[in-house]
Amino acid sequence: MPSYRLDLAYDGTGFRGYARQDGQRTVQGELEDALGILLGVAPLTAVAGRTDAGVHAHGQVVSFDTDGELDGPQLARSLNGILGPEIAVSKVARVEDGFSARFWATYRRYRYQLSQAESVDPLARNQVWNVGRRLDVAGMRAVAAAIVGEHDFSAFCRSVEGKSNVRRVEETWWDEGDDLLTFWIGANAFCHQMVRSLVGFAYDVGRGFTAVDSISEIIESGDRSRVVTVAPPHGLTLWEVGY
Amino acid sequence: MPSYRLDLAYDGTGFRGYARQDGQRTVQGELEDALGILLGVAPLTAVAGRTDAGVHAHGQVVSFDTDGELDGPQLARSLNGILGPEIAVSKVARVEDGFSARFWATYRRYRYQLSQAESVDPLARNQVWNVGRRLDVAGMRAVAAAIVGEHDFSAFCRSVEGKSNVRRVEETWWDEGDDLLTFWIGANAFCHQMVRSLVGFAYDVGRGFTAVDSISEIIESGDRSRVVTVAPPHGLTLWEVGY
Repeated sequence: MPSYRLDLAYDGTGFRGYARQDGQRTVQGELEDALGILLGVAPLTAVAGRTDAGVHAHGQVVSFDTDGELDGPQLARSLNGILGPEIAVSKVARVEDGFSARFWATYRRYRYQLSQAESVDPLARNQVWNVGRRLDVAGMRAVAAAIVGEHDFSAFCRSVEGKSNVRRVEETWWDEGDDLLTFWIGANAFCHQMVRSLVGFAYDVGRGFTAVDSISEIIESGDRSRVVTVAPPHGLTLWEVGY
Repeated sequence: MPSYRLDLAYDGTGFRGYARQDGQRTVQGELEDALGILLGVAPLTAVAGRTDAGVHAHGQVVSFDTDGELDGPQLARSLNGILGPEIAVSKVARVEDGFSARFWATYRRYRYQLSQAESVDPLARNQVWNVGRRLDVAGMRAVAAAIVGEHDFSAFCRSVEGKSNVRRVEETWWDEGDDLLTFWIGANAFCHQMVRSLVGFAYDVGRGFTAVDSISEIIESGDRSRVVTVAPPHGLTLWEVGY
């Protein structure tokens, strides 16, 4: 069967996350329902990153197989008519048969925004975690540097029984604006709540609550209880996926 | 009586504009009601820029006079507790007696954001006008250059009987991103709908509907009916005010 790739962005504020849940408004639920209306039957979809409630996407990727040939640009326009403006489909294209947005992905990049400003910026309030205090950015950069490489991130993940939490972090960096701190992290894959736990840890270092040199020991311990702070979801955006 | 200056930002999406209107949710109404709760009696306020429904503010300025000495930082925190997160007060400070945020202002800068992308960015949908097509940016820059200086902007304003529409535009420029075009304009003051009408005109030039060299003639004509397009409010933000 022909495979299709769908590129989309969404504002996660009004959704209970990406993954379909009965009785909840989710991105997957809305998207599959819309595909069902337009294609006659809702296809099974795969997704690159199952974002949590309140988390956004700039470059999410979804795939599905369907009988027959679809007009990608036309389908994208029709989907936007149903799903917009909270969800925007930028592209629908036929890809290699068997393509899976989930299993073929080799790289994911996330962005996390955090503000040191005393008051919340109303125009960014759903996309920036306002911590309202100055942080030790050098310490936070040291945390970012220490997590690069292949590690078992069990201390920073909500684990699933029997599943490995080993991930390979390719790159991390902090961009520093006047008040805004933006964390970028690229990895082969992420376990559940990994970015928010890492940002929470960096924040604890930034506010002087945790010593930066404990990071390697905590990773080694695999002890989830050592990570106190999980940054809130609304600062997080799935930025892009590589194949 | 001591005078106070209040600096604030707001997301204009949920308000019927800045200026108080009976039975409508407005920024002025919310702010004066909150001041009334905190000070015992609501002061009369003056504002630098009376933004329309849906228009945002990054650096709006409000002033009021009140008896006695106020604790500015404490009042800012209390106001944010009542008004946040759609309205954020970044500062309250005592200023020179008689200060008026409206009459003492000598400079206002606005920002207008417009996207050429095919689909709306869900995370910016309340702050960017999505025109969904490529525009002639050189033509739009020529419009921006032509309006600098002191002119009667009657063709670009919703006029008020008996009031002058002469304004002095100090500077204008377009920032160009991949899809995003950002218009900046600074002037001594603005008449009603002036920025949105100028952006609408620039858009008509950018899409090839209007010739760029008509701009000077239209300004001279003072004929409001010559300006066909008024850009929607949600792309507009009052950025800063100078005194």
